[in-house]
Amino acid sequence: MTEKIGILAIGHGSKLPYNKEVVTQIAAYIAEKHIDVVIRAGFMENSEPALGEAIAAFSGTGVTKVAAVPVFLTSGLHIEEDIPAILNLDENGCGCLSIDGKEVPLCYAKPLGADELIADLVYRRVEEAL
Amino acid sequence: MTEKIGILAIGHGSKLPYNKEVVTQIAAYIAEKHIDVVIRAGFMENSEPALGEAIAAFSGTGVTKVAAVPVFLTSGLHIEEDIPAILNLDENGCGCLSIDGKEVPLCYAKPLGADELIADLVYRRVEEAL
Repeated sequence: MTEKIGILAIGHGSKLPYNKEVVTQIAAYIAEKHIDVVIRAGFMENSEPALGEAIAAFSGTGVTKVAAVPVFLTSGLHIEEDIPAILNLDENGCGCLSIDGKEVPLCYAKPLGADELIADLVYRRVEEAL
Repeated sequence: MTEKIGILAIGHGSKLPYNKEVVTQIAAYIAEKHIDVVIRAGFMENSEPALGEAIAAFSGTGVTKVAAVPVFLTSGLHIEEDIPAILNLDENGCGCLSIDGKEVPLCYAKPLGADELIADLVYRRVEEAL
């Protein structure tokens, strides 16, 4: 069976609009480039939709496997504790979602972290400002 | 005169070690790739050094212009209000630092934001988890 992949892009959320705008745009870039995946964005704080609503929005898409990915620069309490608790992940970062009455396997991806791509982008922001 | 550029990489900071580790590693990548710039990292909360200490560490480096860049995924209150207040930036994001008794121009770069590089990295994190 060919898997139909879902991506749950998890943003921090904020009372200000920026976090939701950026996470939503990043999700849109992924959707444009990878037309075979189904991507939904959800937020931990203040911004809508919350994770539960974002997960519910996989209904009808036929996803057979979902990766939850924190669109955060670094790990922290949301990533270490809150998201695994909400998603009911085991100690290996594995779980499952109930979508359209089926149990769909769920895995947990790492945040962006220290990557040379990020360093290049920080440097580009510096060049734009100089 | 050829400018000697300093980069003040500003991290959020955290009680957990991850933010400092990631921001410090990103600064190290930039330093490796751009050996002509002087980069110092400082933090807004909980992690050391604070911004003032990071700025003091440009002493003796001969920098003639400094770009302050928030190593944050998105804008928010620290970026809109707190950092400009600490750095005494004008409404155009310009200011100056006193380094070794000289006034050194300071400019303010944007955070990472919604960039296709970030989307590619999020997707890579998904692939690693699947």
